[in-house]
Amino acid sequence: MEDKRPKPIRCKAAVCRAAGEPLTVEEIVVDPPRAHEVRIKIVCTSLCHSDVTFWRMKDFPGVFPRIFGHEAFGVVESVGEHVEGLAAGDAVVPTFLSQCSECADCRSSRSNVCSKYRFAVRPGMPRDETSRFRDAGGSPLHHFLGVSSFSEYTVVDVTQVVKVDPAVPPPTACLLSCGATTGVGAAWKLAKVEPGSSVAIFGLGAVGLAVAEGARICGASKIIGVDLNPEKHEIGKKFGVTHFINPKELGEKTASQVIIEMTDGGADYCFECIGLAALMSDAFQSSRAGWGKTIILGVEMHGAPFSIPSREILHGKCVMGSLFGGVKPKQDIPILAQKYLNKELELDKFITHEVALKDINTAFDLLLQGKSLRCTIWMDK
Amino acid sequence: MEDKRPKPIRCKAAVCRAAGEPLTVEEIVVDPPRAHEVRIKIVCTSLCHSDVTFWRMKDFPGVFPRIFGHEAFGVVESVGEHVEGLAAGDAVVPTFLSQCSECADCRSSRSNVCSKYRFAVRPGMPRDETSRFRDAGGSPLHHFLGVSSFSEYTVVDVTQVVKVDPAVPPPTACLLSCGATTGVGAAWKLAKVEPGSSVAIFGLGAVGLAVAEGARICGASKIIGVDLNPEKHEIGKKFGVTHFINPKELGEKTASQVIIEMTDGGADYCFECIGLAALMSDAFQSSRAGWGKTIILGVEMHGAPFSIPSREILHGKCVMGSLFGGVKPKQDIPILAQKYLNKELELDKFITHEVALKDINTAFDLLLQGKSLRCTIWMDK
Repeated sequence: MEDKRPKPIRCKAAVCRAAGEPLTVEEIVVDPPRAHEVRIKIVCTSLCHSDVTFWRMKDFPGVFPRIFGHEAFGVVESVGEHVEGLAAGDAVVPTFLSQCSECADCRSSRSNVCSKYRFAVRPGMPRDETSRFRDAGGSPLHHFLGVSSFSEYTVVDVTQVVKVDPAVPPPTACLLSCGATTGVGAAWKLAKVEPGSSVAIFGLGAVGLAVAEGARICGASKIIGVDLNPEKHEIGKKFGVTHFINPKELGEKTASQVIIEMTDGGADYCFECIGLAALMSDAFQSSRAGWGKTIILGVEMHGAPFSIPSREILHGKCVMGSLFGGVKPKQDIPILAQKYLNKELELDKFITHEVALKDINTAFDLLLQGKSLRCTIWMDK
Repeated sequence: MEDKRPKPIRCKAAVCRAAGEPLTVEEIVVDPPRAHEVRIKIVCTSLCHSDVTFWRMKDFPGVFPRIFGHEAFGVVESVGEHVEGLAAGDAVVPTFLSQCSECADCRSSRSNVCSKYRFAVRPGMPRDETSRFRDAGGSPLHHFLGVSSFSEYTVVDVTQVVKVDPAVPPPTACLLSCGATTGVGAAWKLAKVEPGSSVAIFGLGAVGLAVAEGARICGASKIIGVDLNPEKHEIGKKFGVTHFINPKELGEKTASQVIIEMTDGGADYCFECIGLAALMSDAFQSSRAGWGKTIILGVEMHGAPFSIPSREILHGKCVMGSLFGGVKPKQDIPILAQKYLNKELELDKFITHEVALKDINTAFDLLLQGKSLRCTIWMDK
């Protein structure tokens, strides 16, 4: 009688052997999914700035050898015990954030941070901290954010797998896995941008441009982009950015002063999308007294605290922060996919390049040089 | 033919001649109300910590001689030109915050800070910056917050006068003029405390106790008070405080750690009611990841900025601040008065002492020694 239980799979993966070094495409072994786990055949993946942050990190939670990647689209290959609602052949995106659907946070409409499986940059799987990857020599390889999508196959906890409509093209579904969802969600779900309102966005990378796209579909009438790269002026226009500020070209004035003039008192919503405490303060300064919201999306690069003028916040200002734009993965990603299929939400403009897995280091170069927004990395090419 | 226009009135007022010095009860002259102004016969007033802050202040906006007081109840004596909806004999409370009802902020449900007549600690009246008070020698006396209620008569801009139901007893209506409204409003209007939720309050002065009272009527199930004064434990119970923390009695632990333990992860709503940046940080630390709100009500005593761990806010936390608890004076004070008349909102427990105007310095002593919550200062006794 044939044993139908999933077996280990030999496949290719891009492995990072040491901090900051080019990835090497190697043959690895991917173990079968354990209970509550799903093994996914990755169709395509892409590189996000968070991969780069941890790729550079020499000290814990920077651990090596590791398989990076957390923005992807794939198809379920097999499932472990106790996995409900997912089966081989399902089109899915993995997410770095869990949704257990049982804890107080998952049951509340006010939170998107699962408190049963808390977000953490672990070296292993979320439930047992072990690895499902071994290299050719049999040594374990570390996971990244529970996703590790720079591999032809990966194993992901069921709480981090979201079913998507297979009508969404793979590279587009891939975007919903992290960057685009974070930015669009921050405008739509977290800030709840209102029609006719003014928005200022500090940093026009993929997340910042996704905030612009989210603000556009929410009906914002003024979307101000702030970036040091003058090329972002033209790029921003495609995402709904109506006004552009390059802080290097302002002379004596600050970006905040210009935003306050442009909006007659300050923007209704100010988003920080870089991860610099000084920019968080600029965003706060640029927000309107009375009801201005400052939304923090960037992970502060140096761990520096964000300093708020304590008397100014008394004038009705508000500061909020979020992982993944306040989006509950299993509930909201399908809604965004539907908005895309309805041609309401435009996502394809985020994809500027594509490469095969063997050329993954080119995707790093393009992102580090600021040339790409998203580079699709195809597994089968 | 008799000239019916309002004439100057000679009356008594408590004048502060120099920073930090006892007030002197003097005979003064109160000019008639100009256009858009209302002259009020004060029935009773009370002392708030903001009076004390500016009474001590040697440099601008600390100016002298000045008539303090901004929490009061009175009756309209006469009105200037263009005053609509108010007439002699109306029961009113003055407020330090304006509501012009015309500007974008007054028309929005999201803001309570009038942008036409912005809050500022001016020496004069808000429209023309001049004074309506002269002393016996004819020298002008400065106003305070546009109210200056430590006088038998005062002149207030129409945007700062709220009609109240005369069924509310004068000392109770007086509380709605500032302190009680700020605290109750912060829980009710700004934080929107939900039934069954947990609340932590840093500082159990009149505002902090009013937050507790507001949280109580909103149905909070756990109301944790934090204060260095052990007497606040018993006092707090009367206002709905269910748990008390004295940071001096915690040994190695911090108040935040104890609150996180008590609430299994952090309080849903944390209020800072003192005005110390370090306490603002404690409040933020004590708030729950996922949906915790930190509400800043205290005016930072030293102007120090409030430092937020920039990565921690990403876990779904939010910080907001407000003047007057997010309350729109003309709209919301009558609602609170009605809640009082319905015996839903309990206010009389805030009144711990009463004195006549001639003994106003006793009210200062009681507040400075932490003996009073509110001391009613009667004008006619």
